[in-house]
Amino acid sequence: MLRARLLKIEQKRARSDPLPQTDAPYTDSFEFKVESSGSKPKARRLDHHFSLDSTEQVSSPLKDSSRSARDPSKPPIITLGTARPAPHFFPWTSLSMEGLPHNHFAKVGADSAPVSMGSINGENAYNLSIAMSYGYSAGSPQVLRFATEHVELVHNPPYDDWECCITCGTTSAMEIAFRVLCNRGDWVLLEGYTYPGTIAAANAQGLRTMGVEMDNDGLSPQHLRSILEGWNESKGRKPSVLYMIPSGQNPTGTSQSAARRKDIYRIAEEHDLYIIEDDPYYFFNLGESLDSEDGPTTPEVFLSRLPPSYLSLDTSGRVLRMDSVSKILAPGIRCGWVTASSQVIGKFVSQTEAGVLSPSGPSQVMVYKLLDETWGHEGLLWWLVHLSAQYRQRRDILFRACQKYLPLEICQCDLPKMGMFLWIQVSLSAHPLAGDRSASDIEDSIYNAALDNGVLVSKGTWFAQCKNQSGYLQFRLTYAAAEEIDLTKAVERFAVAVRAEFQLGETPPV
Amino acid sequence: MLRARLLKIEQKRARSDPLPQTDAPYTDSFEFKVESSGSKPKARRLDHHFSLDSTEQVSSPLKDSSRSARDPSKPPIITLGTARPAPHFFPWTSLSMEGLPHNHFAKVGADSAPVSMGSINGENAYNLSIAMSYGYSAGSPQVLRFATEHVELVHNPPYDDWECCITCGTTSAMEIAFRVLCNRGDWVLLEGYTYPGTIAAANAQGLRTMGVEMDNDGLSPQHLRSILEGWNESKGRKPSVLYMIPSGQNPTGTSQSAARRKDIYRIAEEHDLYIIEDDPYYFFNLGESLDSEDGPTTPEVFLSRLPPSYLSLDTSGRVLRMDSVSKILAPGIRCGWVTASSQVIGKFVSQTEAGVLSPSGPSQVMVYKLLDETWGHEGLLWWLVHLSAQYRQRRDILFRACQKYLPLEICQCDLPKMGMFLWIQVSLSAHPLAGDRSASDIEDSIYNAALDNGVLVSKGTWFAQCKNQSGYLQFRLTYAAAEEIDLTKAVERFAVAVRAEFQLGETPPV
Repeated sequence: MLRARLLKIEQKRARSDPLPQTDAPYTDSFEFKVESSGSKPKARRLDHHFSLDSTEQVSSPLKDSSRSARDPSKPPIITLGTARPAPHFFPWTSLSMEGLPHNHFAKVGADSAPVSMGSINGENAYNLSIAMSYGYSAGSPQVLRFATEHVELVHNPPYDDWECCITCGTTSAMEIAFRVLCNRGDWVLLEGYTYPGTIAAANAQGLRTMGVEMDNDGLSPQHLRSILEGWNESKGRKPSVLYMIPSGQNPTGTSQSAARRKDIYRIAEEHDLYIIEDDPYYFFNLGESLDSEDGPTTPEVFLSRLPPSYLSLDTSGRVLRMDSVSKILAPGIRCGWVTASSQVIGKFVSQTEAGVLSPSGPSQVMVYKLLDETWGHEGLLWWLVHLSAQYRQRRDILFRACQKYLPLEICQCDLPKMGMFLWIQVSLSAHPLAGDRSASDIEDSIYNAALDNGVLVSKGTWFAQCKNQSGYLQFRLTYAAAEEIDLTKAVERFAVAVRAEFQLGETPPV
Repeated sequence: MLRARLLKIEQKRARSDPLPQTDAPYTDSFEFKVESSGSKPKARRLDHHFSLDSTEQVSSPLKDSSRSARDPSKPPIITLGTARPAPHFFPWTSLSMEGLPHNHFAKVGADSAPVSMGSINGENAYNLSIAMSYGYSAGSPQVLRFATEHVELVHNPPYDDWECCITCGTTSAMEIAFRVLCNRGDWVLLEGYTYPGTIAAANAQGLRTMGVEMDNDGLSPQHLRSILEGWNESKGRKPSVLYMIPSGQNPTGTSQSAARRKDIYRIAEEHDLYIIEDDPYYFFNLGESLDSEDGPTTPEVFLSRLPPSYLSLDTSGRVLRMDSVSKILAPGIRCGWVTASSQVIGKFVSQTEAGVLSPSGPSQVMVYKLLDETWGHEGLLWWLVHLSAQYRQRRDILFRACQKYLPLEICQCDLPKMGMFLWIQVSLSAHPLAGDRSASDIEDSIYNAALDNGVLVSKGTWFAQCKNQSGYLQFRLTYAAAEEIDLTKAVERFAVAVRAEFQLGETPPV
């Protein structure tokens, strides 16, 4: 099945024209989809969802002119038009890198040497001169092609006119998405605990954020429905945007089940909500339990176990999915991609043209050389299988340490099934000064004591949108950053801080 | 003099602590300035200039926490805090590049081989692991140090608390500057003909733009003053931002004289205007005439001949200067820097945190390895001397071709002293259908005929903010992009299109 789909990608490429070899070439996902257009219904028009900024947005005449200059029926054009320096004025002549080889992780314990990859001036695959010149705002054809194929392989959106756009990373994409979809003063719905960067990005634009309650399966459809059905216009315009991190949610580590996703999508349809699906942890699938050792997984099995993304459920074209390479490759690359209907991507590209313009050329070269030229789609999937196994191991260590060291009479944490976060809830009722000391003072005190002991954790209040969990404090622990051998020590230090604050005495020796 | 200042930079570096070796290290320009603080007056507070968005902006608690974790008096911290993947999860192990060596262009006809530069995991100069992780929004210390030293060397701002911030290129910086300084509906003043990207960026935020008339010296102080003195509040709030491209202006090629700059700065002081100085062509100093061959120039002489930047005149801290590497190195890098007072840079960094986050790590590595490690400040100046000579040669070819082929009875162009643009004004009065055919139809017709003949130029109307030059058409020609040997041919083709439209017959054989 996977093999057949990978073959279709290869065949499609073999049938296609070579990628354009001009500066800032216009490109779009339709050139790269394996399934030909027409077999699926079109996305709904969403004009009423666009912001004032986005409705007024027009495209640049200069950029349009450089696009029209590509007409092959005319004589070769000498350009005295756009102000792009000639490539021989670029002082770098090659860009190369070493990285892990294809299928390095297909075998357990593989230890092959890094392979060299590079881009030089004049090469066909990714001409360095073109990478170093101005780029088109939807990304280079090289990277957009890979992203489009990947999205079709993994998500296969159920409507016809979906497209991808390469971004400068998800923080940038989020800013743009809010600018496209919201006006100052609008409400954005999001999980009751969520990534502070999202809240900051929304607030930075004068948007108001409202948290939806959560349970062990993530955002609660009941509460979402009750907010929307009971909306009082005196608070402002009824929310039309729902932002979620559905897999390995930041900070709670919860992952929405397939049924949960379908319920929420149905509510979005009923209330005409636009969904922003921020899914950087989607590929960190860690398994449902500590003990079930499934053994080495193949890409095919790995893909089959992933929950359906909102994009894959999106029959109407009301989802903007944001993918990032920050967690699966490296954050310094500042690249990712978004997928949505052509109408929304068109607005997204216009907004990019008047802002970040395009992702870094060197970053795009690195992504292309590794993902496309060296690994291929299958190699990337092997890498994700490997990473998931690594994160699973780290999760298990951290979780076992929590079971061992935390005072479980007051601390509760669930095993995260996806992602990189463990969420600890501490019951306040057992605190010696319960009622006399504020929850936020107790949180500060534990946080600072943990830091004094040599472990940095994140406070729950940094992520809190609704304050309804009043009997609990929360802390987010990530197993992504620390060295594996330090994870247990770190939890031990954190546990000492919690015990001291609650006057619970030392950890019993095991 | 230059030698002494370069030595002071070296001495300052030798006295300083090594650059921080942690992820996303906090950094600012004060660590890198040669002149110690306190010898100059502080910038004025500009609270009343900030937008609603910027006034409401707060910094991120998560980012602050990762900053506070650097306290060296505490035991080594294990981080379960910020969600940065551990560096061994990054699949690239080295990044290297080849580029032109130091002082390559110090001697005429030099032809040395490219040198190799590279970054690997664990190195001190620019640890690849750190470059590939999340970065701080003001840029990496490596690049910020170089930019700060460069700005002090070239502009030496006359107030104390100036700072730089590394940007994702000037288009991104412009979007951020407008967001920091303007609210929806505000008026921005700019040159009557200007870069359409600026107009698009302003309009994309719901800002209104108003062109100030220009003469051969650029923006007219008289017209600027008359706009401000005669402002009628029924049009909206009096403009508080003036955007300019003072050197080699895009599209007119004009450069403001030192006296002009001082006049305009004085008006800005009187009317409390904030100045955005967009100066990507500053270092393309081409000389005042075609014939005066000054011979090879040294960096010292080169610097002494540059006009004073607004930043260098800015006693109050009312200038945001935007520098770009797009024209002097390569646009695909998507990096540049802005310089302004600490108060403005603080807002700029906050806005960056809620948007583009930080420039690409690989791009910053490339800039550091070339500019700092390989070239140094002097090497960069030699490169700029070289580039200016190259552009001068191209300007001369294009200008001579214009003199030779254009119908000078209706076409007028001045020799640009800086930059990469030649501006042609075509008098409409001699057109056979003058009065019956619209200027914009005639412009279209020439543009399309030129394209048919194989040359792309830019229409004046793409840049026009004020329509007061009613008796003329304008075209912008750039000598940056085309091959040198094509420049003359291109002008010849353009001239054929102009002559045909005006029924002037063939170019007389020379």
